[in-house]
Amino acid sequence: MESLRFLLPERELPQRWYNAVPDFPKPPAPPLHPGTLQPIKPADLAPIFAKGLIDQELSTERWIEIPDDVRRALALWRPTPLVRARRLEERLGTPARIYYKNESVSPAGSHKVNSSIPQAYFNRLDGILRLTTETGAGQWGSALAFASCHFGMDCTVYMVRVSHDQKPHRRLMMQAWGGKVFASPSDRTGAGRAVLREMPGTPGSLGIAISEAVEEAAKNPDRNYTLGSVLNHVLLHQTVIGLEAKEQLKLAGERVPDVVLACCGGGCNFAGIAFPFFSEKLAGTPIRLVAVEPTACPTLTRGRFTYDFGDTAKLTPLLKMHTLGHGFIPPGIHAGGLRYHGVAPLVSHALDCGLIEAIAVPQIACFESAVLFAQTEGIIPAPESSHAIHAAVAEALRAKEERRERLILFNLSGHGHFDMASYQRFFDGELEDYAHPAGEIERALRDLPLARVVTPR
Amino acid sequence: MESLRFLLPERELPQRWYNAVPDFPKPPAPPLHPGTLQPIKPADLAPIFAKGLIDQELSTERWIEIPDDVRRALALWRPTPLVRARRLEERLGTPARIYYKNESVSPAGSHKVNSSIPQAYFNRLDGILRLTTETGAGQWGSALAFASCHFGMDCTVYMVRVSHDQKPHRRLMMQAWGGKVFASPSDRTGAGRAVLREMPGTPGSLGIAISEAVEEAAKNPDRNYTLGSVLNHVLLHQTVIGLEAKEQLKLAGERVPDVVLACCGGGCNFAGIAFPFFSEKLAGTPIRLVAVEPTACPTLTRGRFTYDFGDTAKLTPLLKMHTLGHGFIPPGIHAGGLRYHGVAPLVSHALDCGLIEAIAVPQIACFESAVLFAQTEGIIPAPESSHAIHAAVAEALRAKEERRERLILFNLSGHGHFDMASYQRFFDGELEDYAHPAGEIERALRDLPLARVVTPR
Repeated sequence: MESLRFLLPERELPQRWYNAVPDFPKPPAPPLHPGTLQPIKPADLAPIFAKGLIDQELSTERWIEIPDDVRRALALWRPTPLVRARRLEERLGTPARIYYKNESVSPAGSHKVNSSIPQAYFNRLDGILRLTTETGAGQWGSALAFASCHFGMDCTVYMVRVSHDQKPHRRLMMQAWGGKVFASPSDRTGAGRAVLREMPGTPGSLGIAISEAVEEAAKNPDRNYTLGSVLNHVLLHQTVIGLEAKEQLKLAGERVPDVVLACCGGGCNFAGIAFPFFSEKLAGTPIRLVAVEPTACPTLTRGRFTYDFGDTAKLTPLLKMHTLGHGFIPPGIHAGGLRYHGVAPLVSHALDCGLIEAIAVPQIACFESAVLFAQTEGIIPAPESSHAIHAAVAEALRAKEERRERLILFNLSGHGHFDMASYQRFFDGELEDYAHPAGEIERALRDLPLARVVTPR
Repeated sequence: MESLRFLLPERELPQRWYNAVPDFPKPPAPPLHPGTLQPIKPADLAPIFAKGLIDQELSTERWIEIPDDVRRALALWRPTPLVRARRLEERLGTPARIYYKNESVSPAGSHKVNSSIPQAYFNRLDGILRLTTETGAGQWGSALAFASCHFGMDCTVYMVRVSHDQKPHRRLMMQAWGGKVFASPSDRTGAGRAVLREMPGTPGSLGIAISEAVEEAAKNPDRNYTLGSVLNHVLLHQTVIGLEAKEQLKLAGERVPDVVLACCGGGCNFAGIAFPFFSEKLAGTPIRLVAVEPTACPTLTRGRFTYDFGDTAKLTPLLKMHTLGHGFIPPGIHAGGLRYHGVAPLVSHALDCGLIEAIAVPQIACFESAVLFAQTEGIIPAPESSHAIHAAVAEALRAKEERRERLILFNLSGHGHFDMASYQRFFDGELEDYAHPAGEIERALRDLPLARVVTPR
């Protein structure tokens, strides 16, 4: 029987995370303090982040050791399987070989847990027993609730009100792990109360939820804030995906892939599978690393590479990144995890350096590929992951047209068990592909308040 | 790092199913034709079942080969992991070692796919390209939709109306795999129409749904019926669980378990993990095989071992089994898969022969153990599986009290991703433990119409 699933034993779970920072041809621009416009110092981050995470955020070391307790926690589900999508290949009639890394097997159902575990761990190491965060669709919130539970910590999640009300099952998952979930805006914070006074019926937004979570952490010395993407240390934690995949491709008797694909919202999922292939890329091996974003939120393909705030409320440091402007409100596509106005500075920098590529795909086509994947490979993917699947299908069909073999690797970042309402809208023909009205993105970019800040080094 | 997950490579997926029939100290009573009261002949089953499955149903061979195409399909997720529940042990402070077989990793999220795959396969072998079945909570329906999709077959599922309306996400999962799902009673069958005329607003029942599915299969020569539990061939297919677990325990350096636990509704899940240990049991090794049922539907612990119909509408053959009477309507507990008036004839026979034990546990305690499991092992279990977890926790606490080591194995039959509404009711304190009013079960048993039929051999 032909092997299709390539499994590593627990002992081959990576011992070190890969930090891409020292490998870029030019150094990435530092985050800036919004008041002084000077590069952020560790002390600026200390009030709301754990020391170990700040060290990682600013580190220029290529390899960073994974603590034993973190590896033990990750081993509850890692190494995740690398799977050859043989039935998908057959259905497409392609000469391409398609492999996917299956991150959907994690407790919370996505790759997010790869970072929530070390984030909780390093906070606990500092004696912090209370964490706070925001969540939109609930992937990161449930990942942090799980990790907090694992390390015996308290976890408060501000969940965008519309998701809180419409997606009760994700919320219940957080509660099962002991997480305290509040609809945002809430009356627990000054930021929340201010919004409620002004817009009593607001559905909330990720920007508001971030403000509430940061405020709660900043006001309570015994509580820290955590973030599920964008920052360097989050991307770092996700590199276990690519590091494992490289070993598993060897196990499958394969060479370096021709193309590596992952969906890209904040950027941690893409970085997690793609950055570990920088060594091959920099050594001249022909390998394409492609970030796949939704046309409805085309940060990398249509955004500007400049300094911008990470949140709507302008509380965060300024990050040099591809952005549509912190005031940009993406349309309500069903891949909630890809609705972010910016993208991780390191992913943006990689694009600027020519190490990676980016494409944008429309959501209906992604759902079509998602159903094709479910019907061949058996797994119902998260709407976010369907963007990577769709790009993989397109690559495989191109290989068929060109009658050339091609080795494709993509990341299945999560399952869609809590996204079936989106599938319902797809089946019912209610989804639309969003076309930005002429000038909309240009207007958003024009409003970038700090586009003229010059990188200070 | 201590290993906690024991994985087998695909090539060690069992090559043969284990048929317990020849190993019983006395032969199990045959199913009877409801008209003649004579043992069922293969020809009686031929109109709605595939030949290969009828052969298995009546087989007395100990080992039955698993066809290559079935093994290839099972290999999409099998062998499933055997996991040492180290964190649960630590939380309980028990000297017991607890292992669980994780069947929740299957595409449809439960063990049911182990049988839907071979059932679809053997039908296709007969040239049947259309299948029909019923489903309550949706576990079996989604398993069959997945298997039908895998083998390129049409699949019609009659889903109990109340579940159809209240659990849209399971229905959408079936639709993602191409399944056609109808709320039952429907206007597509005579049985359905009759019920609708009489009770227009009825929420439906599994009994009615079975009638509709059987009728559709019987009326269409190109369509067959499938069943997700109870029958011998379904139990047979599930023995891959126990066969794999035995190999994995060796891998973990363990001996034969002291106790094997699984929840028991129709019986296939329990038989799947427990029957393969008959060889040890019959050889005199001290091993307890314990079926765990809900106190609200105490088939094995309070039912009578006698001939009864498998469905409410009296369409099926008479099966000798532990039953509360085909007219018994279990209260609406949240473990929908355990709400069945009877239990598989082979499981009933095993209890009668003293090979197995049975216990009943109340649902609130099960949800408490489910949350404990989620918080230690990370997986949110299906309400059905929580019965096995609760029994395992009780065994582990008993070992602690007695200060004795104990090796416990249980089957985690599925995840609870589509059952979060039940968790909501648990968190909200809305669940109640059902206490049968005095005389209720006795009345149900008295009404058994065929309690006086004598086994003909």
